[in-house]
Amino acid sequence: MTESEARNGPEAAWQKAFEDVCDHARRSAAIGSVESLLGWDEQTMMPARASDHRADQAAAIAGLLHAHRTDRAHGERLASLAEGPAGTGDSEIAATIRRLHDDFRKQSRLPARLVEEIARTCVRAQAAWVEARKRSDWSLLEPWIGRVMALKREQGTCQLPDRDPYDALMDDYEPAARGSRIAERFGRLREQIVPLVRAIADAPRRPLDDVVHRHYPRPAQEAFVRRIASGIGFDFGRGRLDTSEHPFCSTIGPHDCRITTRWDEHDLFTAVYGVLHEAGHGLYEQGLRPEWFGLPPGEAASLAVHESQSRFWENMVGRSAGFWEWCLPIAREAFPESLGDVTARQLHEATLVVRPSFIRVEADEVTYNLHVMLRFDLERAMIRGELQVADLRDAWNERFAADLGLRIDRDVDGVVQDVHWPAGLVGYFPTYTLGSMHAAQLMAAVRRRLGDIDGLVRRGEFSPVLDWLRTNVHLRGRLLESDAVMEAATGEPPSERHLVESLWHRYGPAHGLPSRPS
Amino acid sequence: MTESEARNGPEAAWQKAFEDVCDHARRSAAIGSVESLLGWDEQTMMPARASDHRADQAAAIAGLLHAHRTDRAHGERLASLAEGPAGTGDSEIAATIRRLHDDFRKQSRLPARLVEEIARTCVRAQAAWVEARKRSDWSLLEPWIGRVMALKREQGTCQLPDRDPYDALMDDYEPAARGSRIAERFGRLREQIVPLVRAIADAPRRPLDDVVHRHYPRPAQEAFVRRIASGIGFDFGRGRLDTSEHPFCSTIGPHDCRITTRWDEHDLFTAVYGVLHEAGHGLYEQGLRPEWFGLPPGEAASLAVHESQSRFWENMVGRSAGFWEWCLPIAREAFPESLGDVTARQLHEATLVVRPSFIRVEADEVTYNLHVMLRFDLERAMIRGELQVADLRDAWNERFAADLGLRIDRDVDGVVQDVHWPAGLVGYFPTYTLGSMHAAQLMAAVRRRLGDIDGLVRRGEFSPVLDWLRTNVHLRGRLLESDAVMEAATGEPPSERHLVESLWHRYGPAHGLPSRPS
Repeated sequence: MTESEARNGPEAAWQKAFEDVCDHARRSAAIGSVESLLGWDEQTMMPARASDHRADQAAAIAGLLHAHRTDRAHGERLASLAEGPAGTGDSEIAATIRRLHDDFRKQSRLPARLVEEIARTCVRAQAAWVEARKRSDWSLLEPWIGRVMALKREQGTCQLPDRDPYDALMDDYEPAARGSRIAERFGRLREQIVPLVRAIADAPRRPLDDVVHRHYPRPAQEAFVRRIASGIGFDFGRGRLDTSEHPFCSTIGPHDCRITTRWDEHDLFTAVYGVLHEAGHGLYEQGLRPEWFGLPPGEAASLAVHESQSRFWENMVGRSAGFWEWCLPIAREAFPESLGDVTARQLHEATLVVRPSFIRVEADEVTYNLHVMLRFDLERAMIRGELQVADLRDAWNERFAADLGLRIDRDVDGVVQDVHWPAGLVGYFPTYTLGSMHAAQLMAAVRRRLGDIDGLVRRGEFSPVLDWLRTNVHLRGRLLESDAVMEAATGEPPSERHLVESLWHRYGPAHGLPSRPS
Repeated sequence: MTESEARNGPEAAWQKAFEDVCDHARRSAAIGSVESLLGWDEQTMMPARASDHRADQAAAIAGLLHAHRTDRAHGERLASLAEGPAGTGDSEIAATIRRLHDDFRKQSRLPARLVEEIARTCVRAQAAWVEARKRSDWSLLEPWIGRVMALKREQGTCQLPDRDPYDALMDDYEPAARGSRIAERFGRLREQIVPLVRAIADAPRRPLDDVVHRHYPRPAQEAFVRRIASGIGFDFGRGRLDTSEHPFCSTIGPHDCRITTRWDEHDLFTAVYGVLHEAGHGLYEQGLRPEWFGLPPGEAASLAVHESQSRFWENMVGRSAGFWEWCLPIAREAFPESLGDVTARQLHEATLVVRPSFIRVEADEVTYNLHVMLRFDLERAMIRGELQVADLRDAWNERFAADLGLRIDRDVDGVVQDVHWPAGLVGYFPTYTLGSMHAAQLMAAVRRRLGDIDGLVRRGEFSPVLDWLRTNVHLRGRLLESDAVMEAATGEPPSERHLVESLWHRYGPAHGLPSRPS
């Protein structure tokens, strides 16, 4: 053995093991992205009658994926890498090993039986939800929510036995998040948003949005929103835009990011803000490193960070005065008849209408977070055993009246509106509001760094902004935890402060109020 | 143990084993149909840059599917069922067991290494083919055809070691087919088609098709061909129509059959006959028993029988005089400007233009089979070692001149035109012409049974015809071999006779020739 062989021997063995775990994770990602394709197709293309077979397909792939992910040899390789010198320190490789090892341990603590039981129950619970929503009848959904919450509590307890079970579930979407800390942050946010909502309710003036409800033909809308998405940087050579009942963004591969929207010929903003939001998610996905697809250096940090990107483009950019100055000439080309007499100022003002309403997905930017925080508190209480499913509807309605001042008379306006719980997405809601807070904090940082953002937006020069997000958020992958990504990007720990400031700053003057709380 | 338990015991055990093998096969079908979705999406929806990742996804699913299909416990269960009383006799269950057992033995003789090697090589060979076709350069493709043919020969030898290797490959598409018998049948067909082509070349009159080349806007074409497909019975509640470069039909599930077409605004027939052909495939798939999806009672008998259904609707129905009498009013609604002065007779005549040409997929009905038989002879000779890949181009060009009277000057007009060989589809070509022969034989049987077919078609009353095909072909599934299905449906063994008669009968008079060979 030469000296160099003696030196390189152990290192080469270590590298071989690292390549093996990466190959294994890449194969997981390939199978997982097939699951994504099944979901995307189901919501955009699949004939309605095919849904039973789609459930069989999804279950088969989920089973194969779980078996692959929890392969014992892979786990042993990861454990020995994590314990060795390659698994310690600050390098990307060390962080990758630790993330993969955490993923493996969490997944292999879940019995295959439970994975399949959850998949099966959630398919049936969603069918019950469709019916309950159609009939506006909570009693049809209640037993299913009971079953789902019991299974999810079991999942949380299995996968991260040392944690609070709600925190263990949140970990799937927001790694390392703690419910107690989020509850504090949300408490402060709520204390400041409820007064803003009340002030707006009694405001001396209110913005109008009647121009948004003129006639906007669907084919012209399609061409228009594609130009907007391209304009902010979404690459249609590596993605698509399709139609679905609920807008979403789905990644099928490193060069295959698909967004969807819905259309309303009498509401221009439905598609525009739906697409801005989903394209924001898409820009994040397209900004990840493709050579690391499915591995922590090339994955999104968390759902809250993901939502920060969609909310950034939808609200921070899309509801700024400059946005419609850039957009109006393009919009006029698409809708010469409806927009001939409309100014950019009118359209901008229309984005600032605040109107407390029952349905989360139709809520304005100010009241939206009240909807989310309500769900967070209720689902957390259910998983922690502090709220019985039987009392859920009453708890919902009471809290809704307190926060939004509206009385709920029909279940469809309240507790049966969202698909998340029947779909088993428990611990997911808080990421929406965390994302809104992050978006405002990122915009404050971008503004500090780039100066005249409004000028850039007005001129359609989005690339300096996107480049900043790429460097400071996208390229960090999933190597840091969500809060650490935010702190590294903005120089301060995440807080609700920027969101509150941004809301007062934009919505106050539009309603004849000051631009900050008095 | 009671007497009844003693009696039922072994039967119950047998039934349990049968249910288990069916469940296993259903799961194979679920995974296999995910593979189909990957393929469909690749050709209709996927962004171009996503193709490398699509290859990874397809390889991962192919590997998982092979592992699932060749599961040892499944094989042992099948072997003991096949050897027991349930596996003998004429029942559907016995036939199902025998088919599944044959499938299992064939698949498990293939080493996973070879399966993956073929998948990988064919992805790369297809990329080389795209390049070779673009540059019209056989030398770029030749080494890949060499590799593919070597791998396919190995596959044939592995999977059915007792058979001629070409026959072993054909078995994937046409179970139990024998190349020697097909060669005889094709020989007789060629002997009768070459003189028809010559007679048409010197014919006293020739049909015109200039009306087909007026302007037919794409959106109107789309609406029009959807009405045709629905009209003949294709159920869009259980299927879709999309766009792809090469038309195809893909089954994603028992209620999810997707067809595609391409569009040419200056050739009305491109989409019409493309859709009639693919919808014919689709009607077969939609006529299979959904409760047996993925199991022999609910599968297509073979690719030749499949092609008989597409050719039936495309040629036997779609090129009959009655078809355009039915269609013209619908067509006039779609294209009032281009068809205002056109008669049904003119359009029917336009379907009968015969023009020897280089490209198979653009060939007319009469010369089409000469293209196919050439490929069958050449690929069979390569697999049997009677023709070297190095001599393929010369052999192709020589035979083409003999059969169609045209000299090939550019590789793109000859040996590099088809994707089949680079895609590893060896033994597939003969099913096209077998299907054409079957289609003519089925039409003769339908005519004997239903009488005035032309009247039914003229009135758009397609359901008696479709019902006959459902009962006599579709519902038989894959329980009988292809030739046995044909004989059961038509009362005579498959032969080339009906195709020759049908071609003379329809094409002779249109060219001022007799309606049968003199």
